[in-house]
Amino acid sequence: MTSTGLSPWKTRKERERDREMKREAVLRAAARAFNEQGFHKTSLDDVAERLNVSKPTIYYYVRSKDEILFECVRIGLERLDAASRTVLPGGTGLARLIALWTEYARIVTEDFGRCLILVGEDPLPVETRRQLRALKSKIDHRFRSVVEDGIADGSIRACDPKLIAFAGAGALSWIARWYNHTGPLDVDTVARQLIDVLVHGIANPPAAAGALAAP
Amino acid sequence: MTSTGLSPWKTRKERERDREMKREAVLRAAARAFNEQGFHKTSLDDVAERLNVSKPTIYYYVRSKDEILFECVRIGLERLDAASRTVLPGGTGLARLIALWTEYARIVTEDFGRCLILVGEDPLPVETRRQLRALKSKIDHRFRSVVEDGIADGSIRACDPKLIAFAGAGALSWIARWYNHTGPLDVDTVARQLIDVLVHGIANPPAAAGALAAP
Repeated sequence: MTSTGLSPWKTRKERERDREMKREAVLRAAARAFNEQGFHKTSLDDVAERLNVSKPTIYYYVRSKDEILFECVRIGLERLDAASRTVLPGGTGLARLIALWTEYARIVTEDFGRCLILVGEDPLPVETRRQLRALKSKIDHRFRSVVEDGIADGSIRACDPKLIAFAGAGALSWIARWYNHTGPLDVDTVARQLIDVLVHGIANPPAAAGALAAP
Repeated sequence: MTSTGLSPWKTRKERERDREMKREAVLRAAARAFNEQGFHKTSLDDVAERLNVSKPTIYYYVRSKDEILFECVRIGLERLDAASRTVLPGGTGLARLIALWTEYARIVTEDFGRCLILVGEDPLPVETRRQLRALKSKIDHRFRSVVEDGIADGSIRACDPKLIAFAGAGALSWIARWYNHTGPLDVDTVARQLIDVLVHGIANPPAAAGALAAP
């Protein structure tokens, strides 16, 4: 979009939007590089090359590789946080957990979510790591409280809510490691099948076949 | 053990055993350091310090940090491989899968197994990475074939064996990230509860309560 009226210069709002968009492009290119090559093996030169710009251009948007990783992990976590706040309509605890897990699977297979799982906050300095872990823990507790609601309303059988939350996070985060975007299965199909295992188990006969709602 | 008879010198066999034991101590100390601090943040000085020896002593047993990581990951994989070869007595496919998953959980919470999950082969050069991935893939196929046996004998309901294998690997590998050896739950209890989720699901009512054998 160009500026309004006669002026060939962009308005401040346009400039800000432009900068925000370019900053996100830098972060996304870096997330992809980290996910493919690893954080330590990726240089800012690699990121610049992926965007066909020079390294000084990159520094106009971010201060350091650490800042980039912090932002990538933070964005991944913010998306999980947003999902865990919004996927809370009516319905049983189980139905809400299924909706939440479906979103979780989508997020951890996107660039920033994958970066959260594959790289995570471990390479960062202790203070920033602490900030990200606090956000993680908040999200984790929200998942557990949905499980607790399900146990209370009878849709989830009585067991340790923490372990159920971890079982889901583990099975679904694992997708970030093995899922191939060019393969025959789309993410939603993979997620639905994994969630079906978590909900109904693998033993034959299954608990209540057909109870799993389509996403 | 000291040498037999009158000689105060060790026999060749004793010297070899001694060397092997010390090499494993180096690898284990390194695995713990990698698991706690990350591979890139760990120096061979850190490893030497953990063992109260000098860095040259470390070099008597291993050539480089890369060789150490390769060995740690290889040992983790060899243990999974051994489990997947031996946990194959009679019983249904489901019973064998449960036994296999129980072993899997034990292995990924030990030093070398944790290193396999938390660090893995990614930091290594391409050739050694390839060797480890070949071993991984062999183990993965053995898990899948147990699932296939279970589907064939009717103990596991019909679904994609690959996805069931990944669901188990994901949920159980996740323990390596969050499990705290000083916490109130022992690994076998955690594993049993997670495997129960995978086998019977979380929906209420469960599929076939009580069918999960104690380990």
